[in-house]
Amino acid sequence: MTEVKALIITIGDELLIGQVIDTNSAWIAQQLNQIGIAVVERRSVGDSREQILAVLKEAETIAPIVLITGGLGPTADDITKPVMCEYFGGSMVMHEPTLAHITRIFEEILKKPMIERNRQQALVPSSCTVLMNEKGTAPGMMFEKNNTIYISMPGVPTEMKWLMQQHVLPMLPKKYELGAFLHKTLLTAGIGESFLAEEIESVETALPNNCKLAYLPNYGMVRLRLSVYDKNHAAAESLLNNWFNKLKTAVMPYLVADEDIPIYIALTRLLQSKNATVSTAESCTGGYMAHLLTSQPGSSASFKGSIIAYDNEVKHSELGVSYEVLQEHGAVSQPVVEQMAKAVREKMKTTYSIAVSGIMGPDGGTEEKPVGTVWMAVASENKCVSKKVQLRYNRQLNIEATANQAIHMLQRLIVDNPS
Amino acid sequence: MTEVKALIITIGDELLIGQVIDTNSAWIAQQLNQIGIAVVERRSVGDSREQILAVLKEAETIAPIVLITGGLGPTADDITKPVMCEYFGGSMVMHEPTLAHITRIFEEILKKPMIERNRQQALVPSSCTVLMNEKGTAPGMMFEKNNTIYISMPGVPTEMKWLMQQHVLPMLPKKYELGAFLHKTLLTAGIGESFLAEEIESVETALPNNCKLAYLPNYGMVRLRLSVYDKNHAAAESLLNNWFNKLKTAVMPYLVADEDIPIYIALTRLLQSKNATVSTAESCTGGYMAHLLTSQPGSSASFKGSIIAYDNEVKHSELGVSYEVLQEHGAVSQPVVEQMAKAVREKMKTTYSIAVSGIMGPDGGTEEKPVGTVWMAVASENKCVSKKVQLRYNRQLNIEATANQAIHMLQRLIVDNPS
Repeated sequence: MTEVKALIITIGDELLIGQVIDTNSAWIAQQLNQIGIAVVERRSVGDSREQILAVLKEAETIAPIVLITGGLGPTADDITKPVMCEYFGGSMVMHEPTLAHITRIFEEILKKPMIERNRQQALVPSSCTVLMNEKGTAPGMMFEKNNTIYISMPGVPTEMKWLMQQHVLPMLPKKYELGAFLHKTLLTAGIGESFLAEEIESVETALPNNCKLAYLPNYGMVRLRLSVYDKNHAAAESLLNNWFNKLKTAVMPYLVADEDIPIYIALTRLLQSKNATVSTAESCTGGYMAHLLTSQPGSSASFKGSIIAYDNEVKHSELGVSYEVLQEHGAVSQPVVEQMAKAVREKMKTTYSIAVSGIMGPDGGTEEKPVGTVWMAVASENKCVSKKVQLRYNRQLNIEATANQAIHMLQRLIVDNPS
Repeated sequence: MTEVKALIITIGDELLIGQVIDTNSAWIAQQLNQIGIAVVERRSVGDSREQILAVLKEAETIAPIVLITGGLGPTADDITKPVMCEYFGGSMVMHEPTLAHITRIFEEILKKPMIERNRQQALVPSSCTVLMNEKGTAPGMMFEKNNTIYISMPGVPTEMKWLMQQHVLPMLPKKYELGAFLHKTLLTAGIGESFLAEEIESVETALPNNCKLAYLPNYGMVRLRLSVYDKNHAAAESLLNNWFNKLKTAVMPYLVADEDIPIYIALTRLLQSKNATVSTAESCTGGYMAHLLTSQPGSSASFKGSIIAYDNEVKHSELGVSYEVLQEHGAVSQPVVEQMAKAVREKMKTTYSIAVSGIMGPDGGTEEKPVGTVWMAVASENKCVSKKVQLRYNRQLNIEATANQAIHMLQRLIVDNPS
């Protein structure tokens, strides 16, 4: 694959001590891929003059396009701008349109007096082309040196994304002849990575050189990503579709979605295609399923509400689980989740419901019900199905895995019982 | 600062096309920092022989400790192991303890026949020292070359973390003379980054050379991180505590927590210190507040449950919001959130409650109530306080910011009304 290459550099001590997780790089890489630019490497360096100078210098040997985020704030630890000025030459000058923009933000939106520190955010190296940042106070900057383009953006995700969408992504296709670098993803569930590999071996070994297959396992689900590069967009698309369909046929028994979406979006779409609705009754997931099912715009068409019954008293008062059942079977049991699923479905007047109760850990396990024991149930008007699973992750991943598996369970119920 | 340095390398095409977010690096960096090793750079490269060879070669010029994750799975796209064998020398040999371990996993846990692909996971370069991976099928490997240690681990977070904790973190202090690289963090709310910088300017400018201050803004909150390096652990600790206390005094009016915890953990601790409990009634956050408040072990001591009333019908049936009020004021209004807060607190029999209703976007806004309009209320036995905020982020960040601000609002209510 010989597409146009890019390097992503993220600057900030917080990335090197692990205080923040770098989500910017993944987003930037996705966007570049969609216009046929391949990120070949990512580097993170600290707020250090020497490190920033070294990575700027080496960048031109890696890729002709260099995207940089971070280190542009108003405080003393943000040194990227003066270091850029040192590397690319020129002197620091006031960028009047940015100054006017910052002044307006303070006067009209923040309604606070502006201080010298804010004014200085409008200073830029005279060697750069400014990319106006209407979403914040730190301007984007573009430099060129030795046939390499360097674009520096603030690390605040909303500002970086705005600059990418307004300035960078429209500009790059005009500067470079971009081929097509296309991907499609299948989401599978219910089969492990190595067994899935056996199922699709004949397709995988027959893939042409400019097609690449990747396995992305994730707690009981595996995503399969097929990538194609070709100078010609139509050729790439046709090649990708051809092999994608072969793959899809090979994994059909395990297929959840034929696009790169999480399972809760697959469920939401399935529900909305049937004008159906869902509610949840959650103990151990503590609202996480409801959060997933309301994370997309338009969720209110399929999601009505939830009872989060973390406490047994709430399971009784809000979901009608009897004290006798709680006493006899415990909160993590088949009769409890089935009652929870039926009760919330009736209360919220929804087509379907999901209920879970389990022990997420690290404490609370017993010999009989160790940490990771989860009962889950899904209900429709005339069916209520339940099962027990045994998870082996940490608390956070147990919560995620429980939500994913319970959502998958409802998806299977709907698919297997077409009305 | 002249501490022992490390480089983190993550391998995988999925990182370069942005399909997964790299959370491993942040975790590894945190762990290394705690034992006095400073990560000076992070690099991500693709599943490509040339790229992996290049970064392995350059690594020795960057740091004496190189931690590598990813590319060790059982499928064809995982090529790290043969490339390591090529770079460090030797041939691929069967590691019998790993083979026995994999065989046991298949026989006892997965209860599936083992295939050749799984058997091959026990092959390792003869030039490595194997780090047994009891959490999975891909072994960890350690190599030495030109006074540099290379440690290769699988990319699955639970397996990588186990290898770090069992093998790597106990070993490194024995090999290197590690000084102390210490950090402490303050969480503030209610003041912007540049104004906070003015408040603490006299402290910041007086900081000694081996003390470093960083600002980490995050949607209405700013974390201040103070870092200190010293060869001597006691000296580092005393220096850090001394300056940390000065900083803390300077930011007192805005202080939420004097450690690096999110605000929902600060609230949970505050509640538990008072033997108090909380419930939530959520419309626009769709269960996200409940999720945050149940994310920590032991949450059940302070969190009882929630009503997620996404649909107006549920606000009426479960929280007693009258149709007249909904009609007259709309779902996003002061009387609605106050009723929600009062009703859920009574239903769940909790000391406090939090309620929110808003328009998270991108659709659903009106002239009078644009996207980002949120009403929030917090209630105690004899007080119910509410306020309106106007957010300007995207849907996901609006949900996060709403949850954080509403949780902060309850924290203020409790702190300002000591019982």
